[in-house]
Amino acid sequence: MGIPSFCHGDPWPLPWGSLTPAMGIPCPPPSFATGWVRSVRSQKEVLFLHINDGSSLENLQVVADPSLGTRDLTFGSAVEVQGKLVKSPHRMQNMELKAETIRVVGPCDTWAFPLKMKERHPLEYVRQFPHLRCRNNTLSSLLRVRSEATAAIHSFFKESGYVHIHTPIITSNDCEGAGELFQIEVKKNHFFDVPAFLTVSGQLHLEVMAGAFTHVFTFGPTFRAENSQSRRHLAEFYMVEAELSFTESLQDIMQVMEDLFKTATSTVLSKCPHDVELFHKYIAPAQKGRLEQMLKKRFVTITYSEAVEILKQASQAFTFKPEWGCDLQTEHEKYLVKHCGEVPLFVINYPYDLKPFYMRDNEDGPQHTVAAVDLLVPGIGELCGGSLREERLPFIESRLQRLGLADAYQWYLDLRKFGSVPHGGFGMGFERYLQYILGVDNIKDVIPFPRFSHSCLL
Amino acid sequence: MGIPSFCHGDPWPLPWGSLTPAMGIPCPPPSFATGWVRSVRSQKEVLFLHINDGSSLENLQVVADPSLGTRDLTFGSAVEVQGKLVKSPHRMQNMELKAETIRVVGPCDTWAFPLKMKERHPLEYVRQFPHLRCRNNTLSSLLRVRSEATAAIHSFFKESGYVHIHTPIITSNDCEGAGELFQIEVKKNHFFDVPAFLTVSGQLHLEVMAGAFTHVFTFGPTFRAENSQSRRHLAEFYMVEAELSFTESLQDIMQVMEDLFKTATSTVLSKCPHDVELFHKYIAPAQKGRLEQMLKKRFVTITYSEAVEILKQASQAFTFKPEWGCDLQTEHEKYLVKHCGEVPLFVINYPYDLKPFYMRDNEDGPQHTVAAVDLLVPGIGELCGGSLREERLPFIESRLQRLGLADAYQWYLDLRKFGSVPHGGFGMGFERYLQYILGVDNIKDVIPFPRFSHSCLL
Repeated sequence: MGIPSFCHGDPWPLPWGSLTPAMGIPCPPPSFATGWVRSVRSQKEVLFLHINDGSSLENLQVVADPSLGTRDLTFGSAVEVQGKLVKSPHRMQNMELKAETIRVVGPCDTWAFPLKMKERHPLEYVRQFPHLRCRNNTLSSLLRVRSEATAAIHSFFKESGYVHIHTPIITSNDCEGAGELFQIEVKKNHFFDVPAFLTVSGQLHLEVMAGAFTHVFTFGPTFRAENSQSRRHLAEFYMVEAELSFTESLQDIMQVMEDLFKTATSTVLSKCPHDVELFHKYIAPAQKGRLEQMLKKRFVTITYSEAVEILKQASQAFTFKPEWGCDLQTEHEKYLVKHCGEVPLFVINYPYDLKPFYMRDNEDGPQHTVAAVDLLVPGIGELCGGSLREERLPFIESRLQRLGLADAYQWYLDLRKFGSVPHGGFGMGFERYLQYILGVDNIKDVIPFPRFSHSCLL
Repeated sequence: MGIPSFCHGDPWPLPWGSLTPAMGIPCPPPSFATGWVRSVRSQKEVLFLHINDGSSLENLQVVADPSLGTRDLTFGSAVEVQGKLVKSPHRMQNMELKAETIRVVGPCDTWAFPLKMKERHPLEYVRQFPHLRCRNNTLSSLLRVRSEATAAIHSFFKESGYVHIHTPIITSNDCEGAGELFQIEVKKNHFFDVPAFLTVSGQLHLEVMAGAFTHVFTFGPTFRAENSQSRRHLAEFYMVEAELSFTESLQDIMQVMEDLFKTATSTVLSKCPHDVELFHKYIAPAQKGRLEQMLKKRFVTITYSEAVEILKQASQAFTFKPEWGCDLQTEHEKYLVKHCGEVPLFVINYPYDLKPFYMRDNEDGPQHTVAAVDLLVPGIGELCGGSLREERLPFIESRLQRLGLADAYQWYLDLRKFGSVPHGGFGMGFERYLQYILGVDNIKDVIPFPRFSHSCLL
């Protein structure tokens, strides 16, 4: 992961986790290490400390004369240790620090501290302490994986020639139909002169940019004011969205979705093996090995109509009866993924009447569809949604008129009047992505500061 | 910049702007190019088109038989051209496309289109068309530079071992004193049970993370509901913020600020030379060459007390009389930067009573200061602000008590009770950074969708 807080003065180039005996130790004594104490074990002749600086899951073992121990040297305290870095005689780590001095820079009231030494606290327990839970192994691993995945997503798009766009957070669009909106107010005044809301998606603003750049993407916060206590919903969450111009093929969009997913996941697996392993060992044992398997396979594609046929022929009894023209429910999505072999599954060409105004009319019939795609994944359901966009002025104009939105979306119609191009794009829920790759059941455990109905801590 | 929409089928690996005659052309005919028409020139024997796909400022020249021209083939239209890529006989470009077919995929009503061929529209003019201005050369260059700078900032921190944190947008903190807040509402209900606001800074949440990771950063939107029509303020803007643990030296923080600034700027200059040149040629001629000069120099550091002395001795008459204990005004900042040689200038150790509760007490006197730093740059004033944070429980506790905030910030005090570490950090206004490096006068011209009082378009 990182540059360690190690060997100040003579910077030590590698995190502890990457030290191997074969490397040799170029760092001149005395060495200097800082971190938080993860364990203290005092024996008659020797004091063992494990300290962690957040750069990886690995701790540095410190070996000291018991006389260096003080009452302040407890689990959770912050320390500076000076000493010599030596090859460890123990099998469990490569290197250890023979301490000459130990300074407690920040003591920790262990009695009041909600985290306890060597205890594996459940995720629900640490969730109560949003200001302290990052000091827990599981959450610190999560945050390193999240950071690495964020970087991998930015790199994927950059290396594919996409221009990154900061789409706005505050918007005057209020009628995209993506659920409940948060409204903004400033002490009762109309700051913006018009009603303003928190964005539900950057798509329409990305479409503006797709009129000048062939490939654009955004990666930012989006909001829903839905009163849901579900394990899959947050009021504030992150979306990765991309828009591609000069394409008439839904397949092009799906290829980018699959490439993004596989590239980001391979990067995370190779950059954070220990952090991912922690999840697959203690949180989601069934996930172990499955991701690597999945990365080797092509994603499967079926049409919505085929999906409905599969569901109709299922022996399973559904709460919602599958019927052409009705939305796929979570129970249906789970069945379909299972039916197709527990791999990520594209479902394409949804009923025209189910989907938003901007999706491209397939002009088929009598079962009238649009060029939409959802990516369903095992255990989660919908991970990504995308479509070709309706670039033809008469089609989009008449659809907006029927919805009574033609005036509000005059600017959107303009995009079709001046050099319109066939284009399409998709969005991926970043927290659902993390839930999927790590096997985390509750979405509140994959974001640093979860916001949901009745909860906005800190 | 990007991968071009060129040679579909046989992917063409480079953007047009990077083609050089020396390369040779590995792309097999027929080639295929897509883009928006930037100019059409019909001569008796030949039709010249310039098309642009957004991957760089450079256009691709298309040479065609006049019979391939149609009425639809106008400035602003979107086209697909099939033909052969050949070495250009002209000095102005390396390659050109000899067209075999030209298809207008999206015509453009040039009469109604607010952008006109070969006209250099002022920034104030294109600002009126937020959905179309990215099709203007200046704005498309800006957006490429913005994208490149975003990537460079992420890389800088990643390569320095920082963990990236998504600090929350919606927060229940309302008393940091950073100006007017936007409040959130959901149709009159209290969705979160507590008043909730749009964040003004990710610092306090980063400090949470600095209790588990030695280096963290965030890069996201922040908000101010100030009723300002200034050329330097937006209601929604981006901040880069970093927090470093285990440091007792303000100099460490300033070093990261300087390194970040120089690394990002060098990257932008080397990755987007033509885009930057456009600004330094047409928008801010005085800026030309200055950036390169500045990158070679060390930033200058003075104390606040020295700054006040310099101002008192100035022959210039200020609107606000400089006095120890008073805030530095923009006129003061400009004078100081000029006095120090028009280079970026750190001013450190501000009066205790001027600064927020979290800044570290220098315990000096009688002129009582905190370990704060502002980075002032020519033409802009304050670009970054930072400080050591008060990590000592008694100091922060008594300060919060005097402010009546001890209850609201119990969680913040907890960070000092459990393994507190000396730490510090800073924030940089991303739009001001772009204004500075490009020499753009109005902050509304360096963000894709500006939000300010009385304006929230799209």
